[in-house]
Amino acid sequence: MQLWLYCTLLVFAAGGCLAQRPRPCRSPPLLEGSFSVVTQNGGYSAYGKFAYDAFFQRIRLGELINTNNKTLIKDVLLLFQEHVMYLIDHKNKTCQKQKLTSQFHPMKIPCNSTFLGQVVIGSLSAPGEGLLVNTWTKETPENQGQYVLTFTEFGCLPVTVLFNSPKTGWVVTNYFNIIRGIKDPALFIPPPFCKNASLETENEGNFFSVFF
Amino acid sequence: MQLWLYCTLLVFAAGGCLAQRPRPCRSPPLLEGSFSVVTQNGGYSAYGKFAYDAFFQRIRLGELINTNNKTLIKDVLLLFQEHVMYLIDHKNKTCQKQKLTSQFHPMKIPCNSTFLGQVVIGSLSAPGEGLLVNTWTKETPENQGQYVLTFTEFGCLPVTVLFNSPKTGWVVTNYFNIIRGIKDPALFIPPPFCKNASLETENEGNFFSVFF
Repeated sequence: MQLWLYCTLLVFAAGGCLAQRPRPCRSPPLLEGSFSVVTQNGGYSAYGKFAYDAFFQRIRLGELINTNNKTLIKDVLLLFQEHVMYLIDHKNKTCQKQKLTSQFHPMKIPCNSTFLGQVVIGSLSAPGEGLLVNTWTKETPENQGQYVLTFTEFGCLPVTVLFNSPKTGWVVTNYFNIIRGIKDPALFIPPPFCKNASLETENEGNFFSVFF
Repeated sequence: MQLWLYCTLLVFAAGGCLAQRPRPCRSPPLLEGSFSVVTQNGGYSAYGKFAYDAFFQRIRLGELINTNNKTLIKDVLLLFQEHVMYLIDHKNKTCQKQKLTSQFHPMKIPCNSTFLGQVVIGSLSAPGEGLLVNTWTKETPENQGQYVLTFTEFGCLPVTVLFNSPKTGWVVTNYFNIIRGIKDPALFIPPPFCKNASLETENEGNFFSVFF
């Protein structure tokens, strides 16, 4: 009997140790935050804010884009369940409604990612001085690309996403000032002046077109 | 009398508010940690560990360098007060002792830096999910360079140092796994087989030569 008890304890202990290894994870379903994007050649940079709702598959982005010495300001609402995106111009109170061709991709570490390592940004020597993060990599053979994803250990929040492919070079996206939850749920409802916008037949949009 | 009291309280309150603005800071005098360096063109990368003693102006670096498709392993002890550096080869138990021409630069945000902003990496919505950091910039007119320095708000620990100049392009140094204090103070004492190394007259070293 005692042997069984030892064996059971051993299995639990081993399970506990194995469970220490970071696992792919999914970010909380409601988030707001800021992000910056920069490409390796410096020809493109963007800075913006996002609101993310994985329950109803909605994303709102407000961003300032610098590309080819031009500056663009974009305010976009992506409603993936309705397959529709709105390009909103608050200044002129106009709205472009386009078909959204992308599927919704939840913010997460994909299950088939490879774990690279765990580090502390800063230090755990004193409270408030460090942040435990995990880094994963995933290849995307369809475009010879590679993602390197750094997410927080606690909370599974995005910190840095690196993407590299022969076509793009390194693209670095940093996330910061994230809050759990949505401050203003009205962000996900098209503003009143979008009510009469009709679906453009000549233009379609996808998640990546939002950044250009 | 009451007016004076109000005025005094007002001055204290105003002082308190002003004190909220991040100030240039100096890192703790004894640190150990890891770092990675990568250049914009991808032609150079390094990964290593450091031990830092600002009291006695000593730095120990162990690093793995990839440059021009070559891989180098370096173990270096910099003794700034003695103006000497040791290039240590544990495998062959040999030691090069060179004159160190650099001055010691403490790890800090220089006083004349310009504050760019404060952000949270991750989130402060729950404990352990975020890290408050400040970003500063400083120009170095002597080489038309610019530093962008990100340090933790609490503890003044380095997170990221970006350097850009026409000659180098962007050089990104990330710091992580920092601990306050020194685990093994013997790191700063040359190993026994360095005892008989004589100062090379034909070679000099500086802080930057350590990375190439």
